[in-house]
Amino acid sequence: MSENSSKKAPSRRQFLTGAAAAGAGAVAAGAARAAGPDPLITQVQEWATGTGDGVDATPYGLPIRFEKDVVRRNVEWLTADTISSINFTPIHALDGTITPQGCAFERHHSGAIELRKEDYRLMINGLVDTPLVFTYEDLERFPRENRIYFCECAANTGMEWAGAQLNGAQFTHGMIHNMEYSGVPLRTLLEEAGVKPEGKWVYVEGADASSNGRSIPLEKAMDDVLVAFKANGEALRKEHGYPVRLVVPGWEGNMWVKWLRRVEVLEGPVESREETSKYTDTLADGTSRKWTWVMDAKSVITSPSPQAPITHGPGPLVITGLAWSGRGAITGVDVSIDGGKNWRPARLAAPGTDKALTRFYLDFEWDGSEMLLQSRAKDSTGYVQPTKAQLREVRGENSIYHNNCIQTWWVKATGEAENVEVS
Amino acid sequence: MSENSSKKAPSRRQFLTGAAAAGAGAVAAGAARAAGPDPLITQVQEWATGTGDGVDATPYGLPIRFEKDVVRRNVEWLTADTISSINFTPIHALDGTITPQGCAFERHHSGAIELRKEDYRLMINGLVDTPLVFTYEDLERFPRENRIYFCECAANTGMEWAGAQLNGAQFTHGMIHNMEYSGVPLRTLLEEAGVKPEGKWVYVEGADASSNGRSIPLEKAMDDVLVAFKANGEALRKEHGYPVRLVVPGWEGNMWVKWLRRVEVLEGPVESREETSKYTDTLADGTSRKWTWVMDAKSVITSPSPQAPITHGPGPLVITGLAWSGRGAITGVDVSIDGGKNWRPARLAAPGTDKALTRFYLDFEWDGSEMLLQSRAKDSTGYVQPTKAQLREVRGENSIYHNNCIQTWWVKATGEAENVEVS
Repeated sequence: MSENSSKKAPSRRQFLTGAAAAGAGAVAAGAARAAGPDPLITQVQEWATGTGDGVDATPYGLPIRFEKDVVRRNVEWLTADTISSINFTPIHALDGTITPQGCAFERHHSGAIELRKEDYRLMINGLVDTPLVFTYEDLERFPRENRIYFCECAANTGMEWAGAQLNGAQFTHGMIHNMEYSGVPLRTLLEEAGVKPEGKWVYVEGADASSNGRSIPLEKAMDDVLVAFKANGEALRKEHGYPVRLVVPGWEGNMWVKWLRRVEVLEGPVESREETSKYTDTLADGTSRKWTWVMDAKSVITSPSPQAPITHGPGPLVITGLAWSGRGAITGVDVSIDGGKNWRPARLAAPGTDKALTRFYLDFEWDGSEMLLQSRAKDSTGYVQPTKAQLREVRGENSIYHNNCIQTWWVKATGEAENVEVS
Repeated sequence: MSENSSKKAPSRRQFLTGAAAAGAGAVAAGAARAAGPDPLITQVQEWATGTGDGVDATPYGLPIRFEKDVVRRNVEWLTADTISSINFTPIHALDGTITPQGCAFERHHSGAIELRKEDYRLMINGLVDTPLVFTYEDLERFPRENRIYFCECAANTGMEWAGAQLNGAQFTHGMIHNMEYSGVPLRTLLEEAGVKPEGKWVYVEGADASSNGRSIPLEKAMDDVLVAFKANGEALRKEHGYPVRLVVPGWEGNMWVKWLRRVEVLEGPVESREETSKYTDTLADGTSRKWTWVMDAKSVITSPSPQAPITHGPGPLVITGLAWSGRGAITGVDVSIDGGKNWRPARLAAPGTDKALTRFYLDFEWDGSEMLLQSRAKDSTGYVQPTKAQLREVRGENSIYHNNCIQTWWVKATGEAENVEVS
């Protein structure tokens, strides 16, 4: 297999040579149903004998019923209730890089609350010259930025540590979404209040019952953090913190406080529950890593994968997935079909951008034999995504958060795929 | 006003000086309800006494009920029925550049039909070496591209020619959306079939009752046209041509054939109904311009606008809008508050990209007096968006399509805005 593959450069010409077979196959497939062009057109006409829905049918549209399985899903045994739980983005069924809000993962600590713009207030207090309270309308009057960023839960892929090996990219890597945010830099609001010299941290909290408070060093707060009110052009969804959430580019999702109500400037961190007993990584010796805010470079093959098996025979196969890094831009992704023995460069759909998802493709000629599929991301800092063995060596098996190791899918000759571990 | 403004450079420092007032105002507003920090926090806690929805509540999410007015709308008197009609993107209420599929405009000639992936076929015939029929699965096996492009109906802003002056950016400029498309280059499929030397045009048609056939020069078909099956990451919506539509970057939306079923290679154009009696521009002398495919550079201020009035007093005001060009990237946008006498450069939220929407902002200090708001786009070819007078001089008033002239909003001292014409 790997010998066969190593002979095939992933060039378009090479690919089309293989793809011609697909075309021929298609004619046969079409013929089986319709025996060539004319009957085909007849068949096509059958689709079109009636008129369809008028434009008044969809003031706000939803996916067509045939796509009803492409939805967020939670894992019942994972949490005690659904109020403090997660549902996962169906990344196995998506392409491109933008995540529609309708299927972008949710993580709540006390449920998604309803908060009207009219009732919304954002307070900036603590070590500032002038404590301020902003209404929603006030926020709309400050200069805005638009940026595309990924938001990943620190626990994404966490269940792999103990070898739970959930069978699907949606469940192993679906605690992530990637949207275009519109909002006001937190820096602008802090400058408006005037940060006192002794102010070195901010403590941010939400309006939900959990409040989910987190401490952020002032340096980050004054860098690229956004107080955001739109995602992918429209208002945030209730489940994503309507009307206002914090966007903390490249840092763990728990810090992207939803229903943002207060930013307090402090001399030091608060050491809240969410940054001591939670969102720290317990190592083999029982000590814990904390302030592990940045999400390291990571990638996953979304298709083929357990929820997206190969449904055709040998020949052209598009292997595709997502890569991202909280430290910068993705500069390259390698793909292995033999569990990491040999690697070949994947094609990036577009040059990687800072702290955003990058889509990669490997246009591959599959010979029909089984594969151990892996992807390996590289970012603009020179960092290379580690293997599970490398990560376990330094982190042990007790960790829950920040597992960014290389994922393996065992693709069988049948085209079905399983989540496996290779040593 | 303009003198006052001309003294103010749109720099952040300048803006924040003015914005301090907004902050102070906010404190007052907050105080009015809650008299300062501690009561405010009490009030905030009131929002949070209960838990919210669990993650099982939203397998596929919709906008929160408070945003129920941010939807597509049609204009009843505009068309005889809703089966052959348009509904308009609520651009006045959106920010950023991505258009969510749920509110991205629709234009149908015989309604939105339902077509299963299993039943889908794409035929390539005519002047080719091997006529081919592709199934949906076949298409998924070819190398894919991801690109963000705008799709604008040729009739967008058409009602302005006769001075209908609909009162809202949604209705004057809302026949446009901007999405990230994933698909296979049409070039790849044509190369697969093998275009004969005498093949100079392609004729593309859809599977809906109207079929909506259009002729496209081979040069464009072999350039950047995509056979797309995903938009903003997920499957196309029914109303946007599920499962497969054509993406013809920079060219009028009518050519972006939905439910794409056939591409025929021909020596010349078909001169179909959709490119003779429709989608041509009748000039003052009664002759018609045809093959007017490319959408010229255009822009519109989305806020403030008739549907998005100013709801606050003098002081900081974010003026924002959208600009685009079918000929390349937007390189700059100027904004006028005095009906085109004086112009100042707006800030682009990000560098313009090829044939995609660009968001612009003018961070402005409003003195509370009335304004004649206009925006003027420039693209990478050096083209500058014309005034209505300039366009009428060459096109007359009979045209329906391709009106890309500068739009004027009369913003009154009350903050309300109206669609007006300035001479």
